[in-house]
Order: sequence, then structure tokens, then C-alpha cells
Amino acid sequence: MSVTAAKGFTASGIAAGIKGNGNPDLALVVNNGPRRAAAGVFTSNRVKAAPVLWSEQVLKGGQVSAVVLNSGGANACTGPKGFQDTHATAEKAAEVLGRGAVEVAVCSTGLIGVLLPMDKLLPGIGTAAAQLSEHGGEKAAIAIKTTDTVHKTSVVTRDGWTVGGMAKGAGMLAPGLATMLVVLTTDADLGSDVLDGALRAATRVTFDRVDSDGCMSTNDTVLLLASGASGVTPGHAEFAEAVRQVCDDLGQQLIRDAEGASKDIRVEVVGAATEDDAVEVGRSIARNNLLKCAIHGEDPNWGRVLSAIGTTSAAFEPDRLNVAINGVWVCKNGGVGEDRDKVDMRYREVHIVADLAAGSETATIWTNDLTADYVHENSAYSS
Amino acid sequence: MSVTAAKGFTASGIAAGIKGNGNPDLALVVNNGPRRAAAGVFTSNRVKAAPVLWSEQVLKGGQVSAVVLNSGGANACTGPKGFQDTHATAEKAAEVLGRGAVEVAVCSTGLIGVLLPMDKLLPGIGTAAAQLSEHGGEKAAIAIKTTDTVHKTSVVTRDGWTVGGMAKGAGMLAPGLATMLVVLTTDADLGSDVLDGALRAATRVTFDRVDSDGCMSTNDTVLLLASGASGVTPGHAEFAEAVRQVCDDLGQQLIRDAEGASKDIRVEVVGAATEDDAVEVGRSIARNNLLKCAIHGEDPNWGRVLSAIGTTSAAFEPDRLNVAINGVWVCKNGGVGEDRDKVDMRYREVHIVADLAAGSETATIWTNDLTADYVHENSAYSS
Repeated sequence: MSVTAAKGFTASGIAAGIKGNGNPDLALVVNNGPRRAAAGVFTSNRVKAAPVLWSEQVLKGGQVSAVVLNSGGANACTGPKGFQDTHATAEKAAEVLGRGAVEVAVCSTGLIGVLLPMDKLLPGIGTAAAQLSEHGGEKAAIAIKTTDTVHKTSVVTRDGWTVGGMAKGAGMLAPGLATMLVVLTTDADLGSDVLDGALRAATRVTFDRVDSDGCMSTNDTVLLLASGASGVTPGHAEFAEAVRQVCDDLGQQLIRDAEGASKDIRVEVVGAATEDDAVEVGRSIARNNLLKCAIHGEDPNWGRVLSAIGTTSAAFEPDRLNVAINGVWVCKNGGVGEDRDKVDMRYREVHIVADLAAGSETATIWTNDLTADYVHENSAYSS
Repeated sequence: MSVTAAKGFTASGIAAGIKGNGNPDLALVVNNGPRRAAAGVFTSNRVKAAPVLWSEQVLKGGQVSAVVLNSGGANACTGPKGFQDTHATAEKAAEVLGRGAVEVAVCSTGLIGVLLPMDKLLPGIGTAAAQLSEHGGEKAAIAIKTTDTVHKTSVVTRDGWTVGGMAKGAGMLAPGLATMLVVLTTDADLGSDVLDGALRAATRVTFDRVDSDGCMSTNDTVLLLASGASGVTPGHAEFAEAVRQVCDDLGQQLIRDAEGASKDIRVEVVGAATEDDAVEVGRSIARNNLLKCAIHGEDPNWGRVLSAIGTTSAAFEPDRLNVAINGVWVCKNGGVGEDRDKVDMRYREVHIVADLAAGSETATIWTNDLTADYVHENSAYSS
């Protein structure tokens, strides 16, 4: 059900011809109100694509009537012409939908450094608008796929209100507030300030801790739109928890579909002096290419975990570190622990626990193994 | 000629049985004086192997009579027993050579988390001592190989004095003062303070800027020993330059032999506001897995260069960035530049220039492409 699970939203997804292969490549999500409150978080990459620069401005108004999303081109590093193209996209959607362009967010994904085929994209917006439907959420989710093998959607329903969403992303997954294109919708009756608080709290512990390959995109965007159509105003904490659940679910789907991956690795740091320490250590482990190769080879090579921890500034003593892989404490007090032959790594999910023995804070980072397929997917053609 | 090119040094390399396959695995380098001045730089990884902890103490005295090096085991994360083993190794060499153990440095390389077979190593020291020779430099260089496909040596000779050296390293190459095992020798007549200054200045711009896979070892050690046997005291600047040349040459050899690599990538950052900015940007580019895959595929994907630059805190404006790949300015002013089809990437060396247009400082970082062979070498067996 995706972005149309919540009342007050319509969506569509079509093939506008932006992709050369004829696959769906243009999605439209429209908030029919009565409210049009919105919040967004964007990549912290300082090289931002034109649609990110545009949408950041749109979101400052706290109102979004529609989101235009395209795959088949990131419109990043495309200069003034690229920005004009994004502006023209918003203007076209505004004209077709009878809204103001300042309430139209734009998201793009695909190859960097290539201008979008506006002769295909602009007419496509008219086609997409004509197909808007309360059942269009799935088609929209399909149209934003790039190297994704599956489309990703999630829905949480509470007492009279709903949060739903869609996501795309399979490579260049690393945090900077957000890590991919995500549109979330809700029919809860809430203002943009509440949405903003809930969205930032959720992304900080979900998308921001999904780190497939350490590479941060120029286009990452996560939007949350509220229609108020349920007429229900949930408690803020309850709402924030529902948003977190949807973000967590979508983040998990991103990891499971990461390019070339054969293992999903849950790096759980415990015993940290601070949450920041736990995140720093988790990220260092998650980004260690040698460890990611070892996990691919089903080798519980805890020495690579310790060398990754050793590069951080977190509080710890080397001779107090403990590491468990799939429940076996292969490293105790910085040295050899239980028999590494006891570690069963046949399954897709791998669970690494790194105990810093320096406090009681924790954090979990999700990553993938590094595989020949990842190399192939990212070397055989431009993406 | 390696470590025995300079007068006053003998060396040997033997198969002590530490490696299961019978390959050479133990090297000895002895300074016969008259001076025994020395300097060393070590990994900045906070998880340090026992031989690093030992040798750091030895170097505080500024005197080194001998270096024992073994492959076949890193003696890292091996607890108090591992440290006792390093101590026993130094004591044994001291006894055999008639020197003090506090002047014996120890270096180990191989798998982390495994105790060394001391029943093989200790007798091996006696055997290695019996084979010490003024022509033993090459054998020593061969004995410290792990996944290296070739041994690495370098010599610079000046007017009456020489600096020579050997290095090992093929994976887990990333900086932290040093990045591998390296022993340099000179017959110049200089004290440890001068050696220390020259060595730190050299490693900062050579080994410290070799970043094959972003993974920092627990065992990195670079030692410089001076015998004074030439009777010549060169000018400090001239000496420092000779040390830099040897380090640069050895660093290049490490990159060319990096595990699984098919391309050597020279990332040259120019137009930076500060040298620190240049290094930060160079390292971010060098560590970007997606770019490294693209280079492997001979794809001049400059968008991935820009996204890597965008994650740094360096001074730059996105719309002033320029990128050249193999001499073609494929990105100008943050957007599309010259035709990317003009880029010839058929050869092993790839040269990326990133112009931040924010000043006049520069730095060069060397890295490799990311390949299926790298994944295979680091997943098929523990290393």
C-alpha cells in the first residue's frame, strides 16, 4: 500500500522514457489534504543534487502538496541547467495539479553528471497525474527503483491513523541524516513541527545507521507528508514511534537488497561510554573492507573487528574488549576467547557484538559483506 | 641489496617453520656499528600487537642493535602470553648476538589472535644468527613476505653514504604514521634525534599517504637504523631527502603489489586551502568503494569523485570543483566538462586530479582499485 495506505493521498508510477530500457521511471505522490504539512531530511553531502537544493527550500515552508520522483538520472553536478530542470519539473507538476510550485518537492536518482531528458520528463508528469489513484502506492514504489531488485514499502496502522511509505536504494548507502529516496505519508492530523521532530528522531536511529558501503549520495532525501485526513491527532510520542517503525522496516529492506551482498551484518556495540562512541565504533567496524570480505567468506575473523575498533577515538582499553560473532564470544579481554570453530555463519544474517567494557551505552549499525558481485555491479557499467 | 646496502649491517632470512608451508618466515637485521642509533614510527591503531608495544619501548632508548622480524603470525590480540613471547624473542636474539635485549626490536606480521609457535621461532633465531651476512639483505626481505607476491627493497647512495631498506605489505594498508613492516638502514654517522626527524618527515608524505584499502594494521612498524660505518655525517636536509626517496620508492612498491589490485590510482588534490584539507579530500576519494570499483571497470565516473569530496570538511564551493582523470578535465566547475570518452584508462596507472579551487596547497594519496580478486584474497582464507 506504500504511500497511499494513509488517507488523503494519491500516487502513480509510469514509464516516461527517462530510462533507456522502458522501465517505470517517474512517480508522483499527491497530498489531497485537508492538511499539507511536511518535513524532510536531506543528504549531508556538501555536493548536493539540484533536486535536493530545490526541495530543501520547499521544505522550509513546512508545506508539500506533491512530490515528483524520477529514476534514470540523479540530476547531480549538472550546474545551473540542472537546477532549471528541477524548477521546470516542479512548475509543470504545479500547473497540472493546480498547486503552487513552492509546494512541490522533487527527488531524482541515477547517474551523476548527466542532464535529465526534459522532453520525456515533462510530458510524463501529465501522464502520471492522469493516473493518480488511491491504489497507486505500489506503482510509485516500483517507478523509483534503480539497481534495486525489489520495491520497498511499509505500513504501520494505529487507532484510526496510519503511517506508510516507500523507499529506493541499493548502493551508495551511507548516512548523512538520510541515505536514499524515501517518501512517508500519514493521515494523522499534525503540524510540520511535530513531523520534523518525529522524522529526525526516527532517521537518526534507522536510516542513519544503515551503512552498506560507506558511500554517501548527493541525492538522499527522506520526506514525511501529513494529510490530516483521519481527523485524529495522536500523541507525539506514539506518532514518533510509528514513524520510527516504518523507517526501521524500510531501512532493513534496503540492507537486504544491497548491491551484490550475500550477508546482512548487524554490528551491535555495547558497553560504550557514550552513544556517540558506540556509533563511531559501529561505523568503523561496518566500513572495514577486510572484515566485510571475511564475513563474505564465513570467516569469524575477530582480529579485523579489533583492528577496526582500534582506529576510533572511543573510550576503551584494548585488553578489555570482547567480541561475539553469532553468539560465540570469540574474543575475550582483547585476546582469544571461545573456539572460533563454534561460529555458525551459514545464514544470511550475521550478528557481531563488540563490547567496549567502558560503560552502558549501545548502538546498532547495519551493513553488508563485500563481494565480487558488488565489485561487478559497480564496475561493469556507470551507475 | 636492501638493508645490507649500507656498511655496518648484516642480515639473514630463513624458514623457521612458523609458516605451515615451509616458506621463509624469520629475518634478522644486525647493526654492527660503530654507532647503533635508531628511530621508529609505529601504527596509530590503539589495538597494538605485542611486538609493537615492545619495540616502542626499545626505541625510546634511541639505540637498536638488532631487529627480529617474523611472518606467519602477527602476535596481536594475544594477551600477556603474546607479550612474554615477544620478550623471549628479544632475549633469545640478545643472547645469541651478545647484545642487550633492550636494544632488540621485534616485528611480526600475519594472522591476528594466534600465538606464535615459540618452539619453532626461538631455535630459528639461532639458525638465522649463524647465517648473518653482508649479502643477506635480500633473504631478509623475502622472509618477511605474507601475501606479498614480490619482496620489496630500495637503495639510495650519496657521496660516501647509503640509505637502504626493505618492506612488506600487500593488504591492510592504510596510514597511521606507518603502514607496514619496514626496516631502513644507513651508514651515515648520525644520532637518533636526526634519524627521528628524517624518518617522521619522510613517512608523513610517503607511507602515510599510501592507502590501499583503508584498513589500519595493528602491527605497522617503520625502523631506521644508523651504523655510522661510513664515517660521513651528511647534512640533515640531504639525509632527510635520501630517506624520503627510499620511503617513497618502497611505498610505490607496496601499492603496485596490493592484494588483487589491477590499477594503481594516484589521487592528486590541488588548489586546497591547507595541506590538511588536501590530505582529507585525497583520502576520502581514495577510500570510496564505488569509485574504486568504477576505476576497476575503466569507467571515468567523476560523479563518484565529487560525492567523495562532498563528505569532507575541506574548504571548497561545489560549483567550483574540477576533476581530471588521466589528463582529461571531465568535470569543470562542478558540472560536466570535457568528453569522458576521451579518457584512456587501459593502463595500470590511473591519475585523478581533484582541484578544490580554494587555495594553492596540494597532497597526493596512492590507492588501488577494488576488485573481485581483492574480495577473493580476503574472504577465501583467514589472513
